[in-house]
Amino acid sequence: MWADDSASRGLGMHLESVSPGRARVEMTVIESMVNGHGICHGGFVAALADSTFAFACNTYDEVTVAAGFDIVFVSAAHLGDALVAEAVERVRRGRSGVYDVTVVAARSDGDVVVAEFRGRSRSLGRPVLPA
Amino acid sequence: MWADDSASRGLGMHLESVSPGRARVEMTVIESMVNGHGICHGGFVAALADSTFAFACNTYDEVTVAAGFDIVFVSAAHLGDALVAEAVERVRRGRSGVYDVTVVAARSDGDVVVAEFRGRSRSLGRPVLPA
Amino acid sequence: MWADDSASRGLGMHLESVSPGRARVEMTVIESMVNGHGICHGGFVAALADSTFAFACNTYDEVTVAAGFDIVFVSAAHLGDALVAEAVERVRRGRSGVYDVTVVAARSDGDVVVAEFRGRSRSLGRPVLPA
Amino acid sequence: MWADDSASRGLGMHLESVSPGRARVEMTVIESMVNGHGICHGGFVAALADSTFAFACNTYDEVTVAAGFDIVFVSAAHLGDALVAEAVERVRRGRSGVYDVTVVAARSDGDVVVAEFRGRSRSLGRPVLPA
Repeated sequence: MWADDSASRGLGMHLESVSPGRARVEMTVIESMVNGHGICHGGFVAALADSTFAFACNTYDEVTVAAGFDIVFVSAAHLGDALVAEAVERVRRGRSGVYDVTVVAARSDGDVVVAEFRGRSRSLGRPVLPA
Repeated sequence: MWADDSASRGLGMHLESVSPGRARVEMTVIESMVNGHGICHGGFVAALADSTFAFACNTYDEVTVAAGFDIVFVSAAHLGDALVAEAVERVRRGRSGVYDVTVVAARSDGDVVVAEFRGRSRSLGRPVLPA
Repeated sequence: MWADDSASRGLGMHLESVSPGRARVEMTVIESMVNGHGICHGGFVAALADSTFAFACNTYDEVTVAAGFDIVFVSAAHLGDALVAEAVERVRRGRSGVYDVTVVAARSDGDVVVAEFRGRSRSLGRPVLPA
Repeated sequence: MWADDSASRGLGMHLESVSPGRARVEMTVIESMVNGHGICHGGFVAALADSTFAFACNTYDEVTVAAGFDIVFVSAAHLGDALVAEAVERVRRGRSGVYDVTVVAARSDGDVVVAEFRGRSRSLGRPVLPA
């Protein structure tokens, strides 16, 4: 799936790890993601969390898509921040699933939570085909 | 605000109109936003809606930020789609506001709703300074 | 459906109108719904909105259930408030739908928005059977 | 706070435990909460989660209110189910907080997740007064 996801890679995302129901993705906030005050556009934080969610919910043998998500912006991400998003499956039943993603900025004086994201997944009920 | 928002412009967004509590932004789905099947990454759809929301909630005299949002993905956006996001204020009370954004793909055989977004805003209680 | 919904009627809800994709339900805030300060428990406001949503999304020929919802509490409801919830369909595609419900307190000095609710519906794909 | 919350007690809720940022509340699904098929109205499940959230976010020295919440209905609760809601603080920063509540039906053949709830809290910035 990562091989196919040129959009996430184009944003500079790195898939650090993936296991059943879980994923961890890193992205550094670069110039093109910030406004004149050096604050990262919320859309990029959401995109990072959404990609991490997509990896976590596609660790089973059925094609699964994002039905939607909710995000709470906790604190601002700044130019140069190394953001780490960690997705954990909360529940899966039938074709539906709920995944929580926390986005953290790893800073020299400690980690700061940037956003709390909750994704709702929906399996399409058909197997993942070999590439 | 648009002058400062190089991130939104960098994604190819065009601010079509803005008025108190409302905004309309256009973005075309380009190669770097899609996966190998030509389907747009949900993060870009969310970023478009989030920018449109930010413009709509900053049409008053106080600096206002996104506290969070919920998005429902209704149908897939494809490479080449001209997406139009329209934000409308639903309610504003004290420092809090709720804004709805519908993202539509304008196609030759009619418009298709791509996503329904609801943003939650929070005013910081300080005036917007001249640039 | 209303005939079957003794839970909503037990909370004193009155179905005022229903039409394709829409519903309007009224409920007065009574003693058992408030705390010691006369403020209505948010759960009852959510229950009113949820019932109204359920009526609106079941106006078609397939059994439809609530997959989930988001609610924003805008202002407090008080003992004696006549609450009116109005549900409007926002979009429906395949088996999924999005419905917005606004809960208003009708007061002598004007209406006050109490909550903004957005429900996500899911059709079960089987017809409604005659009672 | 529990002493004041006659509404939650009126629904038969029992506060099982409370500690900083956490709470656990139990409620049995009774006749008045179900429809003709014995399925619990989602509003009561939401009310249970909302009360549990309120207890968890009021374990500090400032009055804190629910700004809103999102709920995903995972499986139906039935007449007679003993529902247990467990709230855990996810993050708190400034006057805002995020709390997750899982509602489980404890059944003889194992626990079943009924709903996943995420509450958004807002501190009013004034101390809790002695009763």
